[in-house]
Amino acid sequence: MKMLKGLLSVLLVLVTLSSVMGKPDTTTPKKEKRIPQTLSRGWGDQLIWAQTYEEALFWSRSKNKPLMVIFHLEDCPHSQALKKAFAEDKVIQTLADEEFVILNLVYETTDKHLSPDGQYVPRILFVDPSMTVRADITGRYSNRLYAYEPADMKLLLSNMQRALKFLKTEL
Amino acid sequence: MKMLKGLLSVLLVLVTLSSVMGKPDTTTPKKEKRIPQTLSRGWGDQLIWAQTYEEALFWSRSKNKPLMVIFHLEDCPHSQALKKAFAEDKVIQTLADEEFVILNLVYETTDKHLSPDGQYVPRILFVDPSMTVRADITGRYSNRLYAYEPADMKLLLSNMQRALKFLKTEL
Repeated sequence: MKMLKGLLSVLLVLVTLSSVMGKPDTTTPKKEKRIPQTLSRGWGDQLIWAQTYEEALFWSRSKNKPLMVIFHLEDCPHSQALKKAFAEDKVIQTLADEEFVILNLVYETTDKHLSPDGQYVPRILFVDPSMTVRADITGRYSNRLYAYEPADMKLLLSNMQRALKFLKTEL
Repeated sequence: MKMLKGLLSVLLVLVTLSSVMGKPDTTTPKKEKRIPQTLSRGWGDQLIWAQTYEEALFWSRSKNKPLMVIFHLEDCPHSQALKKAFAEDKVIQTLADEEFVILNLVYETTDKHLSPDGQYVPRILFVDPSMTVRADITGRYSNRLYAYEPADMKLLLSNMQRALKFLKTEL
């Protein structure tokens, strides 16, 4: 616990330092201005993101749209590379916008179904509007079934299209 | 190690956010440009918000800071009025920034402890770093114990100060 705290304080120094770059804020003399955090975190600023898994599941059921959950980390180069490819792929962005409920998380949920083969990043899981995790929709890598790389955008697109064929229709 | 990495990433998110944001998007001709959603939702753009309850609990334990959870709705005039008062109160903003882990939610969690007397908005609950919901810290209204109005900022401030006296210290 002590180590965690030490680490935290070191990193919070970094957080504070990073805000030094922003414009000076005339209302809070003690601090520099921070740029507000976004829900998209760079995965598509023009898309509408759910904030939490509970919210995403509710939207998925209500709208009868599949849910796409992206687990990533800001300090993971694989996550960053995938994010760039994902954000720049217009077909995927449009399909995500129109046909999916989307959620990106940097922190694991308590639902074990979202980590069928472990907690690693980046990984992408689809959840059916019936609230079933589509563990059958996998990427290219047998050791990390839900991992994608920037070169896998076509596979990801085809997996999104698979996810649109629901396991159970609620009609 | 997973926890450490998770922690690192959460904090590095904050460090790197500035690079993620801001650039105008010229790539989506079909739609009007949307303003990226923020985690603050207007409750304090200069504060650092947790995204999910799980994340907030983790930060609270790690930093040994109490957690303040604000439940609200965008189309609720009482929520909007409280938000304005909260965001404009410099003392509360500074105290929240320096001494609390903060989370605002427009969707309920699965944790019933966060709705001791029902699910309504706006309501504010405090959670101890020992992960105990401080149901003893209440507002002015006996029928909705955790509701606050814009006129209640002094009471909210004093409740924040109460929350800083932890139930159990981890020293």
